[in-house]
Amino acid sequence: MRYRATVEYDGTDFEGFQRQAAGHRTVQGELEGALGRIGWRGTSLMAAGRTDSGVHGRGQVIAFDHDWRHTPDALVRALNAQLPADVSVRGVVEAEADFHPRYWARARTYVYTVYQGPQRAALRDRYAWHVVEPLDAAALAVACLGLIGRHDFATFGTDPDEGTNTVRTVQRAEWVAAGETWRFWIQADAFLFRMVRSVVGALVRVGTGVLTTERFLALIEARDRSQCPPLAPARGLCLDEVLY
Amino acid sequence: MRYRATVEYDGTDFEGFQRQAAGHRTVQGELEGALGRIGWRGTSLMAAGRTDSGVHGRGQVIAFDHDWRHTPDALVRALNAQLPADVSVRGVVEAEADFHPRYWARARTYVYTVYQGPQRAALRDRYAWHVVEPLDAAALAVACLGLIGRHDFATFGTDPDEGTNTVRTVQRAEWVAAGETWRFWIQADAFLFRMVRSVVGALVRVGTGVLTTERFLALIEARDRSQCPPLAPARGLCLDEVLY
Repeated sequence: MRYRATVEYDGTDFEGFQRQAAGHRTVQGELEGALGRIGWRGTSLMAAGRTDSGVHGRGQVIAFDHDWRHTPDALVRALNAQLPADVSVRGVVEAEADFHPRYWARARTYVYTVYQGPQRAALRDRYAWHVVEPLDAAALAVACLGLIGRHDFATFGTDPDEGTNTVRTVQRAEWVAAGETWRFWIQADAFLFRMVRSVVGALVRVGTGVLTTERFLALIEARDRSQCPPLAPARGLCLDEVLY
Repeated sequence: MRYRATVEYDGTDFEGFQRQAAGHRTVQGELEGALGRIGWRGTSLMAAGRTDSGVHGRGQVIAFDHDWRHTPDALVRALNAQLPADVSVRGVVEAEADFHPRYWARARTYVYTVYQGPQRAALRDRYAWHVVEPLDAAALAVACLGLIGRHDFATFGTDPDEGTNTVRTVQRAEWVAAGETWRFWIQADAFLFRMVRSVVGALVRVGTGVLTTERFLALIEARDRSQCPPLAPARGLCLDEVLY
C-alpha cells in the first residue's frame, strides 16, 4: 500500500530536507530512519519539495510504500513516537498506487515571516526575519501584482532540475500585516531553486524604499540572476502547503 | 545612573534566569557578560523574577547602575549587539536611583500556552505544551474563578524566599482559546516557586476531565503541596510582563 503523509519540521537544526551523505542531518534522513524502525523496507521516500537548509515545513508531503497492518492513524502515532522533537507527522492517508507527491502536485504555498521593529526579539528570531525599517504596504502590494501570472522568473532562481526552464505561474503573492508581524504568502505551480527567498529579499527592499516598485518590476523583466538582490534568510521561510 | 531594561529570552537552552556557578548557562550570566563588555563595573544586576530552567521571558525587567554616556536607545543597541541570539533587550529607560525591579513590582503576568490536537507539532513544541485530549472551556472558566482573589496557594508552590508565606493575590486567571491554541493568562501580586506550572498542571487535568472543578477547588482549600498534580512542562511558560 502507498501512503501519503503530511510532515511538519523545524528546519533550524537540519541541512535541508533532502538526504545527503552520512554525517549530514536531514529531514528525509530522520523520516527514513523512523520508517525503518517500524518495518519499512524501502530505500528512499518520495517528497513534494526539497527545502533548503534552515527552511521550515508545515505542509511538506511525502509518500512511501509500506505493508502496514494497522490503521493510518496508528501509523501516524508510530512515526511520531520514532521521530525527533523537530519533525512530526501531521497525518497519513492511503494513496493511489502511482501517487507521487512531487509530480502530482498542482501547486505549492510558501509563507515567509518578517517582524518589523527597532530591536531584534529573542522569541521571534527562530521563525522570522527581523527588519528594522518600516515597511510600505502600498509599495509591496504594487510589487506583488507584478509577480502574479505566468512569467520567466530567471532573476529569482534557477531550475531545480538543472535544466533551463525558469517559467513559473504564480497564483497568489500577498503580504498580510498584523501588528509588527508581516507574512508574505506565495502560491505557484512550482518554484525555482531559492525563488521565495530571492523574491522576499527584493520585496523587503521595495518595502523599505531601497528599491522602487518600477525597479522591482524591471528586475522581473530582466530575467538575469546576477541582478537579484541578496536572499532573505532561510529561517523566515516555511513550506506551508502542497495542493493536489 | 540606574537603568531599567525589559528583557526577552528563549529559555530552552538556559538553566534558568538566575546566575549560578561557572559552567551553567543562565540568562543573568549572559546579560552580565554583555554589560561587562560595554563597560559596566557592577557585580550583579537586579531582576524582577527568577524564572526556572526552560521558562521563557517576554517582559522580564532588570536594573543596573552604569555610567553610560550615550542615550538609552544606544544602550539597547549596544547590549543587543553583545547578547546571544536567544536573549534580547526590548527597551531601556532611566530609572529612579533606588528603583528595584523586584521590590517595586506591583504585579506580574505569566502566560502559559497549550496546543490541543491528536498529534504533536514540530513547529509548536518549543513554546507550548501538547495536550491530546479536548479541553472543556466551561470547566476551565469555573476553576479559574476559584483562583482569583487572596488565597493561601500552598498546594501550588513554596515561598521563593525560603519562608512560609504562601498567601498571594491573583488578579486575573483566564484561558483564551483560538483554534487549537489555548493560552492561560495569570496575573498576581507575586508568585510562589513553581506556582504557574503547578496551577496549569492541575487546570489541564480539569479541562480534560481527569479532575472535577470541585476537586480543583478543594485542592486550593487543602493548602497541601503533596496533593498537587504533576507540573506542566516549563517550555509552555513565559513571563509576559511585570507591572509597576
